[in-house]
Amino acid sequence: MSPERSLATEVIVVGAGLSGLQAARSLVDVGIGTVVLEARSRVGGKTLSIPNKNAAGVADLGAEWLNDATQPRVYQLAARLGLECTDVKVQGDSILQGFDGALIRHNYGEQAPLPNGEDEVVKRIKETFEEEYSKIRLETFDDFPHDGITLEEFVRSRGGGSATLATVAVWTRVMLGCEPSDLSAAYFFIYCKSQGGLMKMRSAKVQGKYVTIKTGAQSLSEGLAKSLPSGAVRLNSAVELVTQKKSGVEVRTTDGSVFTGRKIILAFSTPLYSKIAFVPPLPAAKASLVGSTKLGYYTKVLATYSKPWWREKGFSGASQSFIGPAAATRDTSEDSHSSFRLTSFIAGGPGEQWAQLAPAERREGVLAQFCHMFGSNDAYQPTEYIEQQWSSEEWSLGCPCPYTPPGVLTRVGDCLIEPFGHVHCIGTETAVDWKGYMEGALESGVRGADEVFKLLR
Amino acid sequence: MSPERSLATEVIVVGAGLSGLQAARSLVDVGIGTVVLEARSRVGGKTLSIPNKNAAGVADLGAEWLNDATQPRVYQLAARLGLECTDVKVQGDSILQGFDGALIRHNYGEQAPLPNGEDEVVKRIKETFEEEYSKIRLETFDDFPHDGITLEEFVRSRGGGSATLATVAVWTRVMLGCEPSDLSAAYFFIYCKSQGGLMKMRSAKVQGKYVTIKTGAQSLSEGLAKSLPSGAVRLNSAVELVTQKKSGVEVRTTDGSVFTGRKIILAFSTPLYSKIAFVPPLPAAKASLVGSTKLGYYTKVLATYSKPWWREKGFSGASQSFIGPAAATRDTSEDSHSSFRLTSFIAGGPGEQWAQLAPAERREGVLAQFCHMFGSNDAYQPTEYIEQQWSSEEWSLGCPCPYTPPGVLTRVGDCLIEPFGHVHCIGTETAVDWKGYMEGALESGVRGADEVFKLLR
Repeated sequence: MSPERSLATEVIVVGAGLSGLQAARSLVDVGIGTVVLEARSRVGGKTLSIPNKNAAGVADLGAEWLNDATQPRVYQLAARLGLECTDVKVQGDSILQGFDGALIRHNYGEQAPLPNGEDEVVKRIKETFEEEYSKIRLETFDDFPHDGITLEEFVRSRGGGSATLATVAVWTRVMLGCEPSDLSAAYFFIYCKSQGGLMKMRSAKVQGKYVTIKTGAQSLSEGLAKSLPSGAVRLNSAVELVTQKKSGVEVRTTDGSVFTGRKIILAFSTPLYSKIAFVPPLPAAKASLVGSTKLGYYTKVLATYSKPWWREKGFSGASQSFIGPAAATRDTSEDSHSSFRLTSFIAGGPGEQWAQLAPAERREGVLAQFCHMFGSNDAYQPTEYIEQQWSSEEWSLGCPCPYTPPGVLTRVGDCLIEPFGHVHCIGTETAVDWKGYMEGALESGVRGADEVFKLLR
Repeated sequence: MSPERSLATEVIVVGAGLSGLQAARSLVDVGIGTVVLEARSRVGGKTLSIPNKNAAGVADLGAEWLNDATQPRVYQLAARLGLECTDVKVQGDSILQGFDGALIRHNYGEQAPLPNGEDEVVKRIKETFEEEYSKIRLETFDDFPHDGITLEEFVRSRGGGSATLATVAVWTRVMLGCEPSDLSAAYFFIYCKSQGGLMKMRSAKVQGKYVTIKTGAQSLSEGLAKSLPSGAVRLNSAVELVTQKKSGVEVRTTDGSVFTGRKIILAFSTPLYSKIAFVPPLPAAKASLVGSTKLGYYTKVLATYSKPWWREKGFSGASQSFIGPAAATRDTSEDSHSSFRLTSFIAGGPGEQWAQLAPAERREGVLAQFCHMFGSNDAYQPTEYIEQQWSSEEWSLGCPCPYTPPGVLTRVGDCLIEPFGHVHCIGTETAVDWKGYMEGALESGVRGADEVFKLLR
């Protein structure tokens, strides 16, 4: 455990995901020596792009979509790095699968008709949500109406029945990998508002258009990393100990290397703080936040086909299901590579149940669902089938974004972005805009770099 | 931060309370080199005895009573150390103070009559509790019926109304410094059963008799410490970092000293684990237990008088109150020293509210309550008034014993006593019998020493 090597710098960034790399880029831009320590053998964090097996192009196993209008940071980064984009496909009908497995076919972008006249209730719930957004000041991190109850309790208190709750559950599963009974109503409203509101986020039609990066979203991280000075990013460098002294910080990695700096930026999600030993210990409120912030269950499943068979039947490839295994699907084909793909998410409570099964059983369940929803046995013949279980990734613990149960924000919510000693906290969950997205990661990186810069100069 | 000194031993015990000192004593007895590191400048943990100001003898600010029949370890330790004991006084009437402040005088040891015919409900609740104890196997740490609900929910589900709940709240306040809505019903049942059941614990009449130690309960810790080899107990040695290696552990204290050993025994309550950095980090389940285990609000108040004025009016000095500030009082006089004392506990929700006030206001509130309950202005003239706020003690965080909210035991309860790597866990909360008491501390010390001994020899 004795130091193999020792290196002094000005700022140590822990985590080479988009937020950490952006923080490093911003600091280097203003002449501050920065080292990025990354536990994994790759950069990119929750962006991960791997080559397709049976076609050109790549598969995005993590973050994927960028919006050309509302997400300026990430869109401009893609442009600056010269990355080519493809429009996300939205033509055709969508499918809603009800509790009994029965299917409702409806226009993409419109709410599917619900049983028992709950259409009206869902509409009212959406309006109620919009009202709640107006009460939130995202910039302050100290105002959390309805943090005392779960989102489920909130929906019930506004007259939502089983179909409404099931609809809301599809939202929380796809957005956060959890159930409406898992998270604080306030957290959900903050999360929605941060993304411009539920409606803007849940439809590609409303604001600008969504695109994907032909070489994969991980290209953003790789491009940022390459732009840093040689040796600035240290892979396979898992931090085990952060010791704060008056003059700065000392960081030890599991291979015994010691890095010293004046400030440190932690660029990973709150639950991962539990993997590092802190001397002195985390402030009690921060420790409480770390212990009570959760990441939901979230698996991304990509089934690639030699032809877009669902389009032939007039389907957009978009669906949502109250029963799963997949809570939702989207067409993420790259037509120019003849890579035709249905991407789906096994998430939340049903996701956790399906996780107990063997991979082959899960695959059978997903493909049977595709076959049933889009009405073709072609569903059973993917040329490639990939499952990325973010929840079991050691250095992510889940995706896209951690959430808090009731009461936590009110009690210790301000600790999310509050620096302590020489330690600064970034990551997409700390962003004002687009929490949980690549856009939020970049915003938080810029903010963290600015915080540190003001203290150092 | 570079080591000032370095010391190698076989076993490192962290915490010189009763459990840690007993573990060290048991290890030294079988020839195993042991060092005890204590953050405070004194031994004793939650036993603390200070000299009376205006009389001979001492005041016990922490644990105090021993039972001569059901607590063999602690009673025998007192005898072995030659400590003189005094019987606890139980003669006279008791007082129950209701919601409206109105007083009900009743025989000591009997349940006070409750309004609205809730006597019967309280009686049934007690019987229901007794039934629950029979379902629990304390030795296994894996069977937790009713862990999904709070004690309040359990009581309501069995027909308990406001007076019943208020009675149960007095129990949880005095026993754990919390409200029935704070803790898991299962935890409460386990805690009660560990002490032989609610009734045995709440009455001095049932089994054996209770005594106090004339020189104070801290004499037990001091006696144990003195019996250890010179230099074995290191005061002012707060541990900041525990690093586990294949061969053993390395422990760093805040003054830069480094201790190495083959095994380490942590002899403090679960919430205090958050004060130490662990490399590698705590197992996820243990970290979750640490983050969700709580200590209630608990202040012990001792008012000493030149005469036992309450006895002159036929009172035992025992009371319980639904409104506080003191949830309960007892006569803890040492007649032979002419030190006549009412000891009370400001605990749970009301305790937390009273904690917001200035000490003088709190004192005024407590003495006014004594005056009202026992009917004499003599209450306002203590010769000495001491308040010990255990909840704000840096190295205790509360007393007597941490508890868990619903769901925690079921999820991660077995981590309470489960060793990880070279680390073993003791403390009164881990005991099978008399959790939360000095007896439980001693039991856990013996068990921890035995665990380690079996691995080393």
